[in-house]
Amino acid sequence: LLVSNTDCAAAGVFTRNRMAAAPVVVDRETLDAQPTAQRVVVTNAGVANAGTGAEGIAAARATQAEAARLVGCRPDQVLVLSTGVIGELLEMDKMVAGLARATSSLSGDSGLAKGAGMIHPDMATLLGILTTDAQIPEGVLDGALRTAVDRSFHRISVDGDTSTNDSVVILANGASRVPVLERDLEIFGDALEQLCVELAQAVVRDGEGATKFVHLQVTGAPSVSEAVVVGRVIATSPLVKTALAGGDPNWGRILAAAGRADIDVDPGRWSLWIGQGSSATVQLLKQGKPLPANRLAAAEALAGKEVTVRLDLDLGQAAATVWTCDLTHEYVTINAEYHT
Amino acid sequence: LLVSNTDCAAAGVFTRNRMAAAPVVVDRETLDAQPTAQRVVVTNAGVANAGTGAEGIAAARATQAEAARLVGCRPDQVLVLSTGVIGELLEMDKMVAGLARATSSLSGDSGLAKGAGMIHPDMATLLGILTTDAQIPEGVLDGALRTAVDRSFHRISVDGDTSTNDSVVILANGASRVPVLERDLEIFGDALEQLCVELAQAVVRDGEGATKFVHLQVTGAPSVSEAVVVGRVIATSPLVKTALAGGDPNWGRILAAAGRADIDVDPGRWSLWIGQGSSATVQLLKQGKPLPANRLAAAEALAGKEVTVRLDLDLGQAAATVWTCDLTHEYVTINAEYHT
Repeated sequence: LLVSNTDCAAAGVFTRNRMAAAPVVVDRETLDAQPTAQRVVVTNAGVANAGTGAEGIAAARATQAEAARLVGCRPDQVLVLSTGVIGELLEMDKMVAGLARATSSLSGDSGLAKGAGMIHPDMATLLGILTTDAQIPEGVLDGALRTAVDRSFHRISVDGDTSTNDSVVILANGASRVPVLERDLEIFGDALEQLCVELAQAVVRDGEGATKFVHLQVTGAPSVSEAVVVGRVIATSPLVKTALAGGDPNWGRILAAAGRADIDVDPGRWSLWIGQGSSATVQLLKQGKPLPANRLAAAEALAGKEVTVRLDLDLGQAAATVWTCDLTHEYVTINAEYHT
Repeated sequence: LLVSNTDCAAAGVFTRNRMAAAPVVVDRETLDAQPTAQRVVVTNAGVANAGTGAEGIAAARATQAEAARLVGCRPDQVLVLSTGVIGELLEMDKMVAGLARATSSLSGDSGLAKGAGMIHPDMATLLGILTTDAQIPEGVLDGALRTAVDRSFHRISVDGDTSTNDSVVILANGASRVPVLERDLEIFGDALEQLCVELAQAVVRDGEGATKFVHLQVTGAPSVSEAVVVGRVIATSPLVKTALAGGDPNWGRILAAAGRADIDVDPGRWSLWIGQGSSATVQLLKQGKPLPANRLAAAEALAGKEVTVRLDLDLGQAAATVWTCDLTHEYVTINAEYHT
């Protein structure tokens, strides 16, 4: 439970999944109707309240109403975020009891030092809650959040599945009395992006069963969006991700994955580097030509817990980085045994 | 090595991966130039001859030339198919020696009883070689093959990765002297499709680490292509495939996967069934409403080695089936340890 004592400008970015969960449907409506006076964020795990039809919507609205009653605001000033098993209804008696407990234990210093809480427990659902005491109009806040999320949470992949519940919301209560003026917008946007990137990377580092964190840099692209497309295809390739788990510099799988991206490329121009940490120093492919002498150095680089792969398409000046993790036995164990 | 003593009409369907392997590039050119007089198919495993640039093309052409010399035909009457590690060149001395051995051990009854050989060893590459003694013009053969492959090999998924080397070729030598006339086209096409479906299913049953074979039926779709799109997204979802491995009737994951298909759907209209074998008998969702009482029966159905899942979109009359397998520990082991 997150409560602001004053009204907040607010914005949210939600799942692109067409089977959006009830809390996502309700939050979208709530933010459309009331983007300048949000007060409360309620989060629960265990039940996603997705695939639950009209009853699910009613349960999300009942949660809003109960939180509003306890905190002393209107229901349309409450956002609700859920994650967990799809197809089960929220048990409202548990929710009511939990809200009462949470309300009575609210405190002013509960770990929001960076103005951000982050929950991403089950089924790779991503719930992000960002707060700021800046004074900022809701339209500007919305634009800044969309840009920041596009460059962070939309550039990570653990397993390629898109949750029905993904939500990132931001609340700005203006308590600092410092307005974000036209000239400050870039600074505010950069800070928000930096925060979102940090949180998005943390989600990947904590990915189910992950043992390696991977920076996938795509350079020499005709546009940023095409660089992202190529990066995403590589980041979701089971063959690439299992090779990474095995510490195997199987660059052929990286190229093969890139080759099925639906953009116009010429593999004969590609160059590829692999490296330990956050820079790719060992070249394995130069303008389409393998450099087999560097394979051992690449295998050594892959032994680390943080790896960078850089693919240059030699088609333009644009670049983007996508972050992902490896696909391990532990991922299979977690997801084969997760109880419905 | 497959050799026809007479010229064959021939057609091929190849990978959609933009990083097509050298043998794919060479076969496309060969079939374009010489679709009525093919004689030989050479297949090798271990080296994919992909990502090998001009040297790779030269090696594929050298293979054509050597096979032609041994068999006594022209190089443009030879098709070459490769699978294996990407980025390594064919070792021509090994290829020459292998071709000599294969030529000397050719026989007329080497297991081609059904007119089909099938190789799909490494990295999920699919190589299909179909033969018929029907008399059929190459243009008609090409059309029939494309339709059959669209309804079979293009509707399976083991891990969602598209190989650089996927190839299905058909050779028709006309030895039966039975022409396929206009009125026979449907019969020929149906038989070819049935054969391709059987082979495609065999590939999935033999998928890396697979313990379950899954029929994914998508019904009530506006069009067949949209049904296939939805089926493919479900078939490539790691969360669905690990749930299947765990025998878990986690229908929420199936719906969530379908929800990220890029077509216009209404999850509130969806119905879902699960069943053992090739029919889905246990209903878990009815017009968007969960039927939790059937969950135990669904879990029992999932205990089998062959499972059917049916999702009805309630949007139209079209349907399609996609075939896939589960994602297991064994898949991770195989692909994390496959040597580059």
